[in-house]
Amino acid sequence: MADFIAPRIPKGTRDFLPKDMAKRRFVMERIRSVFINFGYNTIETPAIEYADTLLGQYGDEDTKLTYTFQDKAGREIALRYDQTVPFARFVAAHNKRLAMPFKRYQISQVWRADKPGKGRYREFYQCDVDIIGTSSLLAEGEIAKVVNRVFEWLGFDAFVIKFNSRRLMNSVLTHLDIPLKRQKEVIRALDKLGRIEREGVLKELTPLLKGRALDVLLQIVTARGTTEEKIASLREFDTREIEDFLTICKAFGVPRDRLVFDLSLARGLDYYTGIVFETFLQDVDIGAICAGGRYDGLCTLFSKDQFSGVGVAFGFDRIMLAMEELNMFLDVKLNSRVLVTYFDESTLKNSLKILNDLQTAGISAEIYFEPQKLSKQLKYADRTEIPFVVICGPDEIERGEATIRVMKTGKQKTIPQNQLTAYLNGYNDVANR
Amino acid sequence: MADFIAPRIPKGTRDFLPKDMAKRRFVMERIRSVFINFGYNTIETPAIEYADTLLGQYGDEDTKLTYTFQDKAGREIALRYDQTVPFARFVAAHNKRLAMPFKRYQISQVWRADKPGKGRYREFYQCDVDIIGTSSLLAEGEIAKVVNRVFEWLGFDAFVIKFNSRRLMNSVLTHLDIPLKRQKEVIRALDKLGRIEREGVLKELTPLLKGRALDVLLQIVTARGTTEEKIASLREFDTREIEDFLTICKAFGVPRDRLVFDLSLARGLDYYTGIVFETFLQDVDIGAICAGGRYDGLCTLFSKDQFSGVGVAFGFDRIMLAMEELNMFLDVKLNSRVLVTYFDESTLKNSLKILNDLQTAGISAEIYFEPQKLSKQLKYADRTEIPFVVICGPDEIERGEATIRVMKTGKQKTIPQNQLTAYLNGYNDVANR
Repeated sequence: MADFIAPRIPKGTRDFLPKDMAKRRFVMERIRSVFINFGYNTIETPAIEYADTLLGQYGDEDTKLTYTFQDKAGREIALRYDQTVPFARFVAAHNKRLAMPFKRYQISQVWRADKPGKGRYREFYQCDVDIIGTSSLLAEGEIAKVVNRVFEWLGFDAFVIKFNSRRLMNSVLTHLDIPLKRQKEVIRALDKLGRIEREGVLKELTPLLKGRALDVLLQIVTARGTTEEKIASLREFDTREIEDFLTICKAFGVPRDRLVFDLSLARGLDYYTGIVFETFLQDVDIGAICAGGRYDGLCTLFSKDQFSGVGVAFGFDRIMLAMEELNMFLDVKLNSRVLVTYFDESTLKNSLKILNDLQTAGISAEIYFEPQKLSKQLKYADRTEIPFVVICGPDEIERGEATIRVMKTGKQKTIPQNQLTAYLNGYNDVANR
Repeated sequence: MADFIAPRIPKGTRDFLPKDMAKRRFVMERIRSVFINFGYNTIETPAIEYADTLLGQYGDEDTKLTYTFQDKAGREIALRYDQTVPFARFVAAHNKRLAMPFKRYQISQVWRADKPGKGRYREFYQCDVDIIGTSSLLAEGEIAKVVNRVFEWLGFDAFVIKFNSRRLMNSVLTHLDIPLKRQKEVIRALDKLGRIEREGVLKELTPLLKGRALDVLLQIVTARGTTEEKIASLREFDTREIEDFLTICKAFGVPRDRLVFDLSLARGLDYYTGIVFETFLQDVDIGAICAGGRYDGLCTLFSKDQFSGVGVAFGFDRIMLAMEELNMFLDVKLNSRVLVTYFDESTLKNSLKILNDLQTAGISAEIYFEPQKLSKQLKYADRTEIPFVVICGPDEIERGEATIRVMKTGKQKTIPQNQLTAYLNGYNDVANR
C-alpha cells in the first residue's frame, strides 16, 4: 500500500485512552450520582437538530459557532450547540407528558466551531440540571445545593458560587434611567468584566450610558466587601430576592462562605430573569466551571405555553482540566482486577474455569490469550495495571491450588483454587502492603 | 409572538423521555457491566472525523450513507458512521501507548443517512467490544462468551449465535474455481440471503459463478442439519478452525445449543478474515442484534503496522425494541424514591432537614417546591412514580415525628423522624405489600 491516510482528528477534538476514560467516567458518574440523589431524571435529545431550531436562539456570536450542514435531502441541520435550546424544544414538544415541576439532568456532547485553546474544544461534554414549572425560590436553593454537592463529592474544597440577580440588575439600570431595551446590551457588556480588560468593557458601555450613570454603575458593580456589606449598600433597591435566596441556601445546608454575592456577574445570555450563578475554583485559573440561573421564557420561540425554570450547566471538560492540574486523580483504576495466566494447552481448561468462576463472582478478570513466557504475561499485567495475577501450572492443578501474585509487591501466595474468590474479595490493599 | 418554530426533530432521530431513558440506561449499564467484568477498558474517539478518514473504508453504499459537511475552514468533516473505522484510526495513532493484546469497549452514537424504518434510525447507539493484537482463537471464544453473557444478563433466553468462517468460505469458493478477486463479491451477495428474496441473490450471483458451481455453492450454504452434520458434510475442506472454536467456547461455558454453524452467514463487510458471528432472537423478527468477527488488517489504510483482532457490535436500539416487544421491562424505576412535602413557611426548615438527611444517607429524594394542597403533592408523586412520600406538619414536628405514605398501597405510618432513613432502607416491597 503506497500512501497511508494520516490518522489525524479535527482540531479541537480528542481521542481518549483507557486511563483518560477511567478518569472521565469517574468524574461523570460522580456528577450523575448527585443529580440522581436529588431526584433528577435524565432525558435525551438528538445530537442533530433542524438548523432553525437552534439558530436565532443564541446571540450572533453563538450562531456563528454552530456547525450546520445540509442533509442528503437538502434540509438544514445543525449539531447540538448547548443543551438548553434543545431542552426548550423538547419541553414545547412533550410538556403534556411531563409532570410539573419537571426536574431533568442531561449529560451529552456539544459542538462549537470555536477557536481551540486551554479548556476550549470543538467537541465537549456538558452536564445540565434544570427544574422547570415552578417559580419558587426553593428551586434556586436546590440548584445551589446541587452545585455545592457536586464539587464537594468530586473532592474540591476551594470554590465559590458567585451569584447575582438579573431582577436587581434591571432595577439598578432602570434607576439609572437606562431604557429597558438597552439594559440587555449593558448587561452583555458587563458580563465581559473579568474576562476582557476593563478598557474594552468601558468602550462598549460608553455609548450606552450617560457620563454619571456609567460612573455610578461601575461603582455599584465593582464594589468590594462582604455579601452583607454589598446588600447593605443597595438599600435603595429591593434586595429581598437575594436575602431570601441566602436564607433558603442556609436551610439546604450550603456553606455560607461559598456563596459570594457579586454584582458584576451578569451572564451573557439574554434569557435569564432572576438569580444567576457562576462557580469558580480558587486555585485554578480556568474561568467559570459551572454556570446558570433563572429564566422565565424557556419555550418562547416554540410555543405559547411558558415555563419558568432554573438550571446550571457543568463544564465537564474544564472540571477535568482543573482536577488534573490539582492532581486530584490519585487512585483511578482500570477495569481488570485479575489476569489469569495461560501456560499451555494442557492447563488451559483449568485456567478458563478459574476465569469463569471469578467473573461469575463479580470480579473483573481476563485471561492472557497466548501461551507465552510468564515474564511476558506479568509485563502485560503491569502495563495494563491489573493488580492480581493468578498462576496455575500442572503441579498446582494436581494439588487443586493456584498461586496469586500481588503485582504491587511482587509477593506470591499459593491457596486452594476454590478459595480464590474469597481471598480476592477480602484482600485489603493497605493491610497487605 | 406571531409565529412559532415547530418543535420538530429530524426524521430518524428521537427524543427520549425519563421513562424511556430509565430503560435505556438499565440496558446500557448491564451491557457495560459485562464488558467490565471481562476486563475491557473503554476509549472514546470524536463524533466528528475528517471525511477522508471514514470515506473509502466502507463499501459504496455505506459511503453514500455517511453524513459529511464542510467545517468553517472548508475542511471535509464526517459524522461517525460506525465505531470500527475510528477505532482503526485510533490504533494507528496510539498503538505505541497501548499494551497488546488490547481489549477495548466503546458505547457511543453513530449517524447514518439511512431510510428510517423499524429498528433503523439516523442516530443510534452501538456497543462494541474488540480484542486486537492476538490471533489466538481464544479471543473468538471470549467474544462468543461476552455475547452470550450480555444477552443472558439482559434477560434473554431464546437466542442463537450463528457463526461461520471466512477462511472456510474462501476455501469452498476456491474449490469451486472462483478466483480470489471475485470471492468478495460472491460473499457480499451471499450475505443478502435471508434479508432479500432468494431470487435477488441469485441474480447477483449468476454473473459471478458458472452454472454448476452456483448449484454446488447454494447446496453447501443452504444445507440443513445440526452443526455436527454440517461439519461432517464439509469433510473435503479444512474445518479445524470451526471445531477448535467450538471446543474453546465449551471451555468458556457458552451453552452448546446457542452456537449454530451457518454456512450462509457471510457478513457484508470486506474486512473479515476468520470466524464471523451474528446473533438472532428466536421470538423477534428484527434481524441480527449483534454481529462481528475476526479481521486481520485493521489499520491497513492508516499505517504499515497491522493488528489482527476480533470484535462484535451490539445494536443497542434493536435490543431496546426487542425488549419492549417481549415486554421485558417489568420494574424499571425512575430516580426519586422519596418526596418530602412542603406545607408552609413554618414547616419548611424541618422538611429541608429531612430531605438533607435522606440524601446524605444515599436515598434519592426531593422536596415539592411549592406549599400546595397535599392532594396535589401526592398527585405529583404518583405521576413521577415516587414510591414514598414523607409528610411532616406542625403537630408531627412538635412530636419529632413524620408520616410515611407508601404510594402503591396508600398506607401511612407515623414514626420518629430520626428513624426515617432506617425505615426506608429496610423497607421491603414484597413484605409490606
